[in-house]
Amino acid sequence: MTAFGADLMARLDAFAGFTEEPGLLTRLFLTTQHRAAADWLMELMGKAGMNARLDPAGTVVGRYEGTVPGAPALLIGSHIDTVRNAGRYDGNLGVLAAVAAVAELDRRGERLPFAIEVLGFGDEEGVRFPVTLTGSRAVAGRFDRAALETRDRDGVRMADALRAFGGDPEAIAAAARKPGEALAFLEVHIEQGPVLEAEGLPVGIVTAINGATRFAVRLRGMAGHAGTVPMALRRDALAAAAEMTLAAERVAAASDAGAPEAGLVATVGRIEAKPGAVNVIPGEVAFTLDVRAPEDAVRRDACAAILAGFKGIAARRGVELAVETTHDAAAAPCSPGIRRQIEAAVVRAGVRPLSLPSGAGHDAMAFAGVLPMGMLFVRCKGGISHNPAESITAEDADLSVRILLDIIRHFEHETPTA
Amino acid sequence: MTAFGADLMARLDAFAGFTEEPGLLTRLFLTTQHRAAADWLMELMGKAGMNARLDPAGTVVGRYEGTVPGAPALLIGSHIDTVRNAGRYDGNLGVLAAVAAVAELDRRGERLPFAIEVLGFGDEEGVRFPVTLTGSRAVAGRFDRAALETRDRDGVRMADALRAFGGDPEAIAAAARKPGEALAFLEVHIEQGPVLEAEGLPVGIVTAINGATRFAVRLRGMAGHAGTVPMALRRDALAAAAEMTLAAERVAAASDAGAPEAGLVATVGRIEAKPGAVNVIPGEVAFTLDVRAPEDAVRRDACAAILAGFKGIAARRGVELAVETTHDAAAAPCSPGIRRQIEAAVVRAGVRPLSLPSGAGHDAMAFAGVLPMGMLFVRCKGGISHNPAESITAEDADLSVRILLDIIRHFEHETPTA
Repeated sequence: MTAFGADLMARLDAFAGFTEEPGLLTRLFLTTQHRAAADWLMELMGKAGMNARLDPAGTVVGRYEGTVPGAPALLIGSHIDTVRNAGRYDGNLGVLAAVAAVAELDRRGERLPFAIEVLGFGDEEGVRFPVTLTGSRAVAGRFDRAALETRDRDGVRMADALRAFGGDPEAIAAAARKPGEALAFLEVHIEQGPVLEAEGLPVGIVTAINGATRFAVRLRGMAGHAGTVPMALRRDALAAAAEMTLAAERVAAASDAGAPEAGLVATVGRIEAKPGAVNVIPGEVAFTLDVRAPEDAVRRDACAAILAGFKGIAARRGVELAVETTHDAAAAPCSPGIRRQIEAAVVRAGVRPLSLPSGAGHDAMAFAGVLPMGMLFVRCKGGISHNPAESITAEDADLSVRILLDIIRHFEHETPTA
Repeated sequence: MTAFGADLMARLDAFAGFTEEPGLLTRLFLTTQHRAAADWLMELMGKAGMNARLDPAGTVVGRYEGTVPGAPALLIGSHIDTVRNAGRYDGNLGVLAAVAAVAELDRRGERLPFAIEVLGFGDEEGVRFPVTLTGSRAVAGRFDRAALETRDRDGVRMADALRAFGGDPEAIAAAARKPGEALAFLEVHIEQGPVLEAEGLPVGIVTAINGATRFAVRLRGMAGHAGTVPMALRRDALAAAAEMTLAAERVAAASDAGAPEAGLVATVGRIEAKPGAVNVIPGEVAFTLDVRAPEDAVRRDACAAILAGFKGIAARRGVELAVETTHDAAAAPCSPGIRRQIEAAVVRAGVRPLSLPSGAGHDAMAFAGVLPMGMLFVRCKGGISHNPAESITAEDADLSVRILLDIIRHFEHETPTA
């Protein structure tokens, strides 16, 4: 058995050298560092037997032909842009693991009845411009040209930055795969959460990329002197918010405990109480609520249950409640057929197959409903991501390449499903 | 029956004209506006048959002799300094109501077997210098000379400001009443809380000025992605803080409901969650807890119960808990004898006698343990104070003067008690 781990880890370390800030990893979309990374990646793809090119949206595309040139392609990819002060595995692992798998096929002279295209997308993080999934949406035929007019914080238009990078804003529509050109989309990605580590598993099969709904909640009670207002006469906005926080937690925990695959989570991440003095009962509180689940119905039911709870709490406490929905995105379910194929490869690798939702967004979302789509998650230390402390083991990296190779070798085309 | 209300309200309105900011009421300790207010008050006292003077600590003292000149005095007073953008009744009502009562005695030629001294203290709010109760502590013989060295935000020493005002820092010890010179201390004050209004009562008898303990609480859980960390794997510092907030509320509400006079209150007034992003589970939270009760044992027991609850919550949630006591002040109980005398006058006025604790501090605190001490609370609209919306009715103002007169006329000296 070839050991892919050591090579892959060394390449990930080398790839992290393409950064705006020495010592840290920061590689934003369409920067000179992004272009240097793309060139390095295209060279690597060439050595792995692929024809490499940059597509009009700035995605690095490496094509490994099948037994018959021009056959439909299995797309495998992730992103090579990063957040500021990033870890080196988020996105990059998926791209370099795919290159490693193809390199192994090439080394052995293996050709499959389909082509493989490895995709290194340039904009998954959405850090530089106020849009995201630029590259994957272009390939999926879902690019919104309005994105080209957005500007970064220095006032640079995406269209201009893309042209300087070597892309072609006018030709982005041509980046889309035509019907019959692509078979499916696969993505290997670190979990960015703690589940696999807690389960003692190196990899897991993604069920869906969670839908998410966010609310801005405002409460207006009555401020008062912390010493002079008896408990029974209070309309304490912070006590109401505390009760709501626990109500949201309870709804999510109950759902998640009852059905581990439910994957419902609810988070109060931001809170502000006014006037905010040690000796004043808070009269106003604003807080955020983020609710996610792999199934839209589960998320919608949970939101309804939580908001009904909020209304009851507000009424009982004599506090005014105002709720604004600030974000609402549907879930992107992975295709059942692709999930089965990934699961079979995991089992063949001798690993207990665990299915879990993805709480974070990924390039694979862009393909939901367009191509059969699926993801393999790789364990990361402490669930930490978007942080220099992001860490995976060489053993897990090795296993991810072997499983990906096994999926490719056993790949069966299926009719696209939503 | 003489109607004191209209006159008293007109005087309170006029007195509010002594302010640093036209249109608002701001009268800080030892300012020129404070001095002008003191001069106006001394003139008013003179017209009411009193000998008025400024004592060395800047307190306006008006003495109304009894049947025998030089007799021990019943002290009645409150403060004439205000917070910034204050209401016009906090402190000032108690001083001008006392002047009105003495004026009525003088008008009728009534002399009592004791003298009356009306005191207009200059520093109850503690806004200008980082100390408080300067005037009342001086009269009570409890002045701490270290206060003279404190400075306001412009760097002015209190000793210098006091000298410029017309006081005498060197002679403050002489402001203290010697044993036998004073019989008791009475204070009329707006409630600054909503209890009397809720009970439909114009006045109430204060049981004690609450003791208070304040805590700074810090929680350290684990920050994480709001989408990727399942509920069961979270160590959410904000959810822990929410549970603690409700635990503190529950302890106070249970005590207060079980024994209305218990008067226990607990307040989380300030909270900060970090990192404070909509999509990140809070890893750190800091919040304040303020616990008050008229009896020290009740407050101590409540603090112990609340902190034990906090420990249990922190342990169960895997969150680190750090608690710092930032303030701890004993309760100042009103003298049982004075409470009985005030209650008897309230009953004679045809009002249901309600006893309640004071959640806020008052000049009367300075006399606890030195002289028999008691307070009459007057209803204020919505419990609002420290705000231009502070409001009382002329009827309640009238009643407070009549009750004070009645207390004076029936006053019985008792042996000082703690």
